[in-house]
Amino acid sequence: MKNFLKISLLATSIVGSINFAQAQQPAIVEDFKPSVLNQPQQEYPQVNSQGYARFKIVAPTADSVRVSLGLGGRGGTKLAKAEDGTWMGTTDGPMDEGFHYYNVKIDGGKFNDPGTLNYYGSVRWESGIEIPAKDQDFYALKNVPHGNVQQILFPSPSTNTSRRAFVYTPPGYEKGKDKYPVLYLQHGWGEDETAWMNQGRANLIMDNLIADGKIKPFIIVCTYGMTNEIKMGGMRNFKIDGFQTVLVDELIPYVDANFRTIAKKEKRAMAGLSMGGMETKTITLNKPEVFDYYGLLSGGTYASTDFKDKPKPKYIFLSCGSKERPDGIRKAAEELKGAGFNVDGYISEGTAHEFQTWRRSLLQMAPKLFN
Amino acid sequence: MKNFLKISLLATSIVGSINFAQAQQPAIVEDFKPSVLNQPQQEYPQVNSQGYARFKIVAPTADSVRVSLGLGGRGGTKLAKAEDGTWMGTTDGPMDEGFHYYNVKIDGGKFNDPGTLNYYGSVRWESGIEIPAKDQDFYALKNVPHGNVQQILFPSPSTNTSRRAFVYTPPGYEKGKDKYPVLYLQHGWGEDETAWMNQGRANLIMDNLIADGKIKPFIIVCTYGMTNEIKMGGMRNFKIDGFQTVLVDELIPYVDANFRTIAKKEKRAMAGLSMGGMETKTITLNKPEVFDYYGLLSGGTYASTDFKDKPKPKYIFLSCGSKERPDGIRKAAEELKGAGFNVDGYISEGTAHEFQTWRRSLLQMAPKLFN
Repeated sequence: MKNFLKISLLATSIVGSINFAQAQQPAIVEDFKPSVLNQPQQEYPQVNSQGYARFKIVAPTADSVRVSLGLGGRGGTKLAKAEDGTWMGTTDGPMDEGFHYYNVKIDGGKFNDPGTLNYYGSVRWESGIEIPAKDQDFYALKNVPHGNVQQILFPSPSTNTSRRAFVYTPPGYEKGKDKYPVLYLQHGWGEDETAWMNQGRANLIMDNLIADGKIKPFIIVCTYGMTNEIKMGGMRNFKIDGFQTVLVDELIPYVDANFRTIAKKEKRAMAGLSMGGMETKTITLNKPEVFDYYGLLSGGTYASTDFKDKPKPKYIFLSCGSKERPDGIRKAAEELKGAGFNVDGYISEGTAHEFQTWRRSLLQMAPKLFN
Repeated sequence: MKNFLKISLLATSIVGSINFAQAQQPAIVEDFKPSVLNQPQQEYPQVNSQGYARFKIVAPTADSVRVSLGLGGRGGTKLAKAEDGTWMGTTDGPMDEGFHYYNVKIDGGKFNDPGTLNYYGSVRWESGIEIPAKDQDFYALKNVPHGNVQQILFPSPSTNTSRRAFVYTPPGYEKGKDKYPVLYLQHGWGEDETAWMNQGRANLIMDNLIADGKIKPFIIVCTYGMTNEIKMGGMRNFKIDGFQTVLVDELIPYVDANFRTIAKKEKRAMAGLSMGGMETKTITLNKPEVFDYYGLLSGGTYASTDFKDKPKPKYIFLSCGSKERPDGIRKAAEELKGAGFNVDGYISEGTAHEFQTWRRSLLQMAPKLFN
């Protein structure tokens, strides 16, 4: 996500995903366990109760192995040859809670850690690791009724192909007759339509909220937002038209025709993280007749002046991590509230421009939608 | 898949996925194009019209880079340093048509090619490459109505967790009222429930068959068949009980309760590839009251004596690639036919123990089910 930050138009600061090394780090507690995102039967990477991560890579004749997480002289964590000929290393401090993308540099080439599952970010499938969070219960897989996540292929005449989206339908959808509101939920730069259900765990967050009676069920739809094939660093030339057409003229009518939705503005939301927030802001302001609930997650802010000639939406949600620029969110929320908007500004404590911020944002935002 | 073959009880021969190098290979035609399974914006690996594959790996200071495909002295394809400092190499002969798993050895460690998407096989996420096949049209993404593939999480008391399955529902399912037959379709050793929809393209094969009017629509369900956590090489200790309970007592009732299925034996099929065929054979013979259509894809054969005290199923499908042991399939089909069974034996021409065999097998089998 860093590249996007550097080139984005958003007023968020460039923040890393890791704690800066302290002069005095606490002694490392040797209670390391395999990360929950490891591939089956893989013992490494491991994480401990303090949030340190430990890596082990097999490459007996390599000259240099480095993991992109942790500081270690700003180049990540340099692994060292262990007695058994493998490369091992531990981050130089505890990492933020939640999900982190990373990769492994081996003799100057960028690869993935064979120990972990891969997640699409930075325009490549990256390794993923999960630092157990104190609040991880809200996105845990529990013994509750589960909604389904389905891949749909919808016709897109404007791009001359069938495009993919993932649709979360709440528990009971398959056999029921109810109609549901819909949240269109966008990923960030370099990610794709898999992000919210994979690293975001949006389906489990919804399952748990519904099981706890905290929200009325709704549908979530995620599709690919980099429609005009942005090359690395190409955000300067970003135009919303391509994606707006796919979303508003192609995907929404398809979803309304093929799922039991309440097909009206009052029951339709759009939200997005990072670049997806920028897209949300632009499209909701371009198409105020389509959505009535807007969410920007580490993705900028609205000002009351944005709505000069436009109807007020029913609700606006703004958020970011405390390690981003929380004052911007707080001020924007205050300004909007003063101008008579129904708005929340949420700050995720102790997290940066990463998925833990956005999981928590979904948790906070979902109960406020469609009321 | 090779490990499974070595330790399996099946009478299939151990066959590689590649053509053996000839004394005289044809001159390589320089019409290489990126494989269709490459990650976005990735130029390598490439394939040419003859079926050669060419690889390019960035690892400037590595001592040795080797790709597991192609022969090259039986260790795959050894890459050589190119002028620009990258590692490049081309297979020493054309490869079989269709999908191949592979990995990259860098300085003695096993990694994935950062250029390609990953597919779960050999108990790890592997790199994938697609050699364009003459018959690739039947699994191509076309402008036809598309069914959906949905992830379900079903309760499994026997394993004390929620387990994952993927369910293909045919076009029109969401808005219709029809009830459908169901095919339970299993992956091979080292693969998982993602295999048939990802590398198998089962959803697209179904979409195209339905659009062409060649089959009546049905549902496909894929779940994980290595329920008892087989370790590498642990097939000797394989017991069917764990998986049979999950499939028959947990998954099938869940699917029948949550999807519009025709919940009776006459409209239920089970098939599987390789180890999934072995599971299919065992479970269908243990539970003849549950399934009425049986398919073994490179996964062994039935003999008429297997049905001594059991009802005859409505249909049996047996298949393998011509580079496996096709005579075994032909003989078994003949024997069953002679004993009055409704059976087909299908041989996929020019393919081995790989997914092209199984894509074609699904194409052949699907029109014969539920008639």
